[in-house]
Amino acid sequence: MTSTQPPVHRKAKGYRWEGVVVQPYKEDARALFKAVTRQVLFADPQQGSELRYFEIAPGGFSSLERHAHTHNVLILRGHGHCLVGREVREIVTHDLIAVPPITWHQFRATGKEPLGFLCMVNAARDKPQLPTPEELAEFEQDPRIADFLNGTR
Amino acid sequence: MTSTQPPVHRKAKGYRWEGVVVQPYKEDARALFKAVTRQVLFADPQQGSELRYFEIAPGGFSSLERHAHTHNVLILRGHGHCLVGREVREIVTHDLIAVPPITWHQFRATGKEPLGFLCMVNAARDKPQLPTPEELAEFEQDPRIADFLNGTR
Repeated sequence: MTSTQPPVHRKAKGYRWEGVVVQPYKEDARALFKAVTRQVLFADPQQGSELRYFEIAPGGFSSLERHAHTHNVLILRGHGHCLVGREVREIVTHDLIAVPPITWHQFRATGKEPLGFLCMVNAARDKPQLPTPEELAEFEQDPRIADFLNGTR
Repeated sequence: MTSTQPPVHRKAKGYRWEGVVVQPYKEDARALFKAVTRQVLFADPQQGSELRYFEIAPGGFSSLERHAHTHNVLILRGHGHCLVGREVREIVTHDLIAVPPITWHQFRATGKEPLGFLCMVNAARDKPQLPTPEELAEFEQDPRIADFLNGTR
C-alpha cells in the first residue's frame, strides 16, 4: 500500500468527506468564476481518471472554458443550468452531463441551494482555454446564451 | 463525434437514466450474487475509467471477489454493509469506499431500501477471482465476517 492509497472507508458529512480537503476551485487567475469549491474524492494512481466533487454556491458559476479532455458529470445535489457548446440545459440532481473535447462549457447554480456535482476527468489533461473577447461577444449574440451568461435566464 | 459519444444531457428518472440500459449485474455463472442491477453511466473512450451505477435490492449482495484492478465507490442511495479485505463497514449515502488491488470485497443491502452506488473502474481490467471453498471456510472463522456473509449481522 503506497502513501497515495486512500483509506478503505471515508464517511460523508454533508457533502464533505473524511480526509478530503476543501480546496479553492482553481488557481488560474485568468479565469472568471464565483463561489466554487473543489474536493478530490478519488485520485487513484492505478486508474486513468479522477473523481472530483465541485460545489457552487447559489448565484455562483464555474469558469467558461474548453479543453481537449472530456468531463463526465453527475449532479449530486441541487439544480442549476449549464452551457455545453451552444446548448443551455436545466440540470437537476442525478442528471448526467458529458462535455466533449474542445467544447465550451460552464455550470451555474441558479437555484436557492448549492449546486454540487461529481466530475470524472482524465488524470493527465490539457490546460483549459478561455474565451477571447471576440468569442464572448459572439456568444452574447445568441439571446439564450446571453441570458445564461448574464444570469438572467 | 463518434457513435460512442453519449448525448450531452441525460436526465435522471429515479435512479434510472435516459438512454442507459438496466443490465444484469454480471454474466459470470460461477459467481454467487443476488438482486443486483448494473447501469453504465459513462464509458468514455477518451477516459481511462468508466462510471457504473449498481443497485442491490434489500437482502441482496454483490459477488465476493477480488482482482488486480481497483474500485472507487460512492454510495448514491440507501445504506448497507461492505466487506473489504477483512474489514466489515457500515456504509451510508455519499460514503466513499476504495477497494485496493487483490482485495476481497462484497457489498450487501442490509437496510429496507435498495443500496445504490457509483463505481469507478478502469476500462481495461482483469477478470475477478472467486474464493475457493477453503478461503470461504477461512472467512467463516472470523465471527464478524461470518455474520456479514450470512447476512445475520
